[in-house]
Amino acid sequence: MVSSFNNILSFRMKLISNLLLILIPFSNSFAQHSDSIVVRKIYDEALLKGNSYKNLEYLCKKIGPRQNGSENSKKAVDWVKKQMEQYGLDQISLQEVSVPVWLRGTKEKAYIIDNKEKIDVPICALGNSLSTPNGGITSEVIEVKDFRELKQLDTTFIKGKIVFFNQIFDPAIIETSDAYLKVLNQRLNGASQAAKYGAVGVIIRSLTPSIDNLPHTGIVEYDVALPKIPVAAISTKAAEDLSKRLQQRKLPTVKFHFEQKCETLSNQTGHNIIGEIKGEKQNEVILLAAHLDSWDLGEGAHDDGVGCIQILETLRIFKKLGFKPKHTIRVVMFADEENQLSGAKKYAEIAAKKSAETYIAALETDLGGFTPRGFTIDTQQKSLQEIEEWSSIFRQYGADKFVKKETKGSDIHWLRNQNTILIDYKPDTQRYFDIHHTALDTFEQVNKRELELGTASIAALVYLIDKTQ
Amino acid sequence: MVSSFNNILSFRMKLISNLLLILIPFSNSFAQHSDSIVVRKIYDEALLKGNSYKNLEYLCKKIGPRQNGSENSKKAVDWVKKQMEQYGLDQISLQEVSVPVWLRGTKEKAYIIDNKEKIDVPICALGNSLSTPNGGITSEVIEVKDFRELKQLDTTFIKGKIVFFNQIFDPAIIETSDAYLKVLNQRLNGASQAAKYGAVGVIIRSLTPSIDNLPHTGIVEYDVALPKIPVAAISTKAAEDLSKRLQQRKLPTVKFHFEQKCETLSNQTGHNIIGEIKGEKQNEVILLAAHLDSWDLGEGAHDDGVGCIQILETLRIFKKLGFKPKHTIRVVMFADEENQLSGAKKYAEIAAKKSAETYIAALETDLGGFTPRGFTIDTQQKSLQEIEEWSSIFRQYGADKFVKKETKGSDIHWLRNQNTILIDYKPDTQRYFDIHHTALDTFEQVNKRELELGTASIAALVYLIDKTQ
Repeated sequence: MVSSFNNILSFRMKLISNLLLILIPFSNSFAQHSDSIVVRKIYDEALLKGNSYKNLEYLCKKIGPRQNGSENSKKAVDWVKKQMEQYGLDQISLQEVSVPVWLRGTKEKAYIIDNKEKIDVPICALGNSLSTPNGGITSEVIEVKDFRELKQLDTTFIKGKIVFFNQIFDPAIIETSDAYLKVLNQRLNGASQAAKYGAVGVIIRSLTPSIDNLPHTGIVEYDVALPKIPVAAISTKAAEDLSKRLQQRKLPTVKFHFEQKCETLSNQTGHNIIGEIKGEKQNEVILLAAHLDSWDLGEGAHDDGVGCIQILETLRIFKKLGFKPKHTIRVVMFADEENQLSGAKKYAEIAAKKSAETYIAALETDLGGFTPRGFTIDTQQKSLQEIEEWSSIFRQYGADKFVKKETKGSDIHWLRNQNTILIDYKPDTQRYFDIHHTALDTFEQVNKRELELGTASIAALVYLIDKTQ
Repeated sequence: MVSSFNNILSFRMKLISNLLLILIPFSNSFAQHSDSIVVRKIYDEALLKGNSYKNLEYLCKKIGPRQNGSENSKKAVDWVKKQMEQYGLDQISLQEVSVPVWLRGTKEKAYIIDNKEKIDVPICALGNSLSTPNGGITSEVIEVKDFRELKQLDTTFIKGKIVFFNQIFDPAIIETSDAYLKVLNQRLNGASQAAKYGAVGVIIRSLTPSIDNLPHTGIVEYDVALPKIPVAAISTKAAEDLSKRLQQRKLPTVKFHFEQKCETLSNQTGHNIIGEIKGEKQNEVILLAAHLDSWDLGEGAHDDGVGCIQILETLRIFKKLGFKPKHTIRVVMFADEENQLSGAKKYAEIAAKKSAETYIAALETDLGGFTPRGFTIDTQQKSLQEIEEWSSIFRQYGADKFVKKETKGSDIHWLRNQNTILIDYKPDTQRYFDIHHTALDTFEQVNKRELELGTASIAALVYLIDKTQ
């Protein structure tokens, strides 16, 4: 009997497991099908009735650039709060952040002195740079590609001179954000490295693959153990001209002059803005991150007005389509990403004290508002196969490049742990660094459709994560 | 013995087949690896030493728009020929084509008459359209979405009036080129359809998802059996304004006036330009197609200056890297794609007589110079798996979206047969129809890096096809 019972049991088990084998794919494909329908609704809402473009226009044109401590930065916080209220979010709050304040001052001046000729060139001070002394700095120029080359020079040769870092943004690297990271240290650390050897000022080649007349700003990080010297970025066209003149003439017939009147004031109070739709599991959070501050040049459109608008619009779409999320969907627009990440640090500090809250996922959008390509997924939890299941839904929308690797998002990196899926939204970035941190980062550079497609991709992925986690 | 011999044989066969199973993937991956190295060289040449951007600048800025019969179209042929000579191609020839000549004449004028108010609106005559009578046409307006709606109207209601086709370019369709094909018939056939019911003129909403002030030209195809009436495109913003006024007021208080002075001259001689690198198998051809003609508005940059530059640059890269192709790599820049495809027809007619020549593949690039996404592959020969093998090489370049389906390329569609692989180059087209056939289709709208990446993708695929076919 036992044996026969076992046989029957074994037969039944086989039957059930075979049935399961048949049914599981069906249930998967059924779930996929119903997900596809919701995703289509999200895209339709973003493309046909979206607020992305008009909101971005308001942020860029009615408010403008949003540097730490500026009147605009306060106006922007007020306006975002009002938008969140209008969209009927469950909770809206402001988090006070002590932000550093740096002012560019009057427009910078610079020229090359080549024998008796003076050639004006476009520069801009780097964020946090010192002012030049009254009357500016005029000096011979030492051109180097990188720190290694600088280190090999005779120290006496550098003393009292301007060091010119002319490392190019490598056009052969396909991902522009990778090429950017390869040259970033000349902007971050060039000033201190040159000061170590007695330089009086530093000029860096702007971080862009484009050869044009736009100087690109961005933060300099002074080494506290070293003297601080003024540093500015020069346009790539002028950098090439300066380099050519230095090669053609023998030193010291070529000199450089630059003047900037920037200053660092005492810290002010800025704000992280937080808006959320509460989930059934209120303490399990999906975080959407962007930064509301921007450089003073341009209008902070692609960097990162676009990101703020996209995550705000994600919440509006969720409300509009009547989604009741399982997890709390929380948008945070951080203060001060561009200077010292004080907004992200403050948020992390407070979050660490709320032991009841856990983060299911955190998605950052800070790579511009161009055509969506996909997402970078940083996870120890999800298998490649599970990620590919998500990505397949995005194939018809052209946003299906899901890559499993470490994310770069500067406002969410503190959340890297075993339990949180970190995500960077990846638009096409081929033209991003042409305008990054320049006067050209304006509303006009954002294409309505590309922006809306990006919004839809983000909202759709948030929907899928909320549903499947 | 026999049995034992058979056993040994069977064992040997197994061993061999197992070895093959081990070795084949190696040899495949070895081939893939060496292909990857060559592809990388192609990208480096295009990105670091490319001529694409400066050539496009010359074509757009030193020559300009290249309408059939224009002086510019002749200059462009001469210039391309000179470039081909400079690149040391094996054969360069011109093919005479009788091209239709249509002139826009003095700038079009149009306004809405709303009670006593006159509101100027931007329009442009469609290519091949009739002129309006002296003094223009002033009439009541009948707005319809499509031919079905037109057909349902009372004929007496249409007689003597202007029909306004206001079908929107659907923003919910993700592929803009699909959305374009869905509304194209209002531009191609709207005039004849309205004339059938006695309309005196036609205004069509410009074929673009963007809401702006730019009218978009393009060809009208008159039905020879029906009366010909003048037709113009109106900007989308003005179309929406006109539609709103028509809905708000009762007819006939809203009227429309338009004037255009276009004319059709007798045919002239244009040219297809052909340049090639001869292959070992001289009569087996890989054809690269683009069109050198353009509309008179703008500079014919994205449409299709970019395509011409990319295929020209493909030959330059082949020469520069010293490739000796197995098949003849032939570039054809066709005359008159925009009007009657007379260039493609002439080429096809002559090709049909050269029975010794066969076409391995034909690739067309005529969807703009934006970031590459991949290729549409139209083939009865190649399996999906073989195509995926190609596409895997393009993954790191972001150009790996290889879709097996019918291509749209208007200059190569006559080659659709069992033996030829037809290919459309697919860049990102989200912003393409914002500028398509408008005054904004200028050099400034093309991004250097995106153009060069497109060139490299095309050259790399041509290399792979030549090698593997």
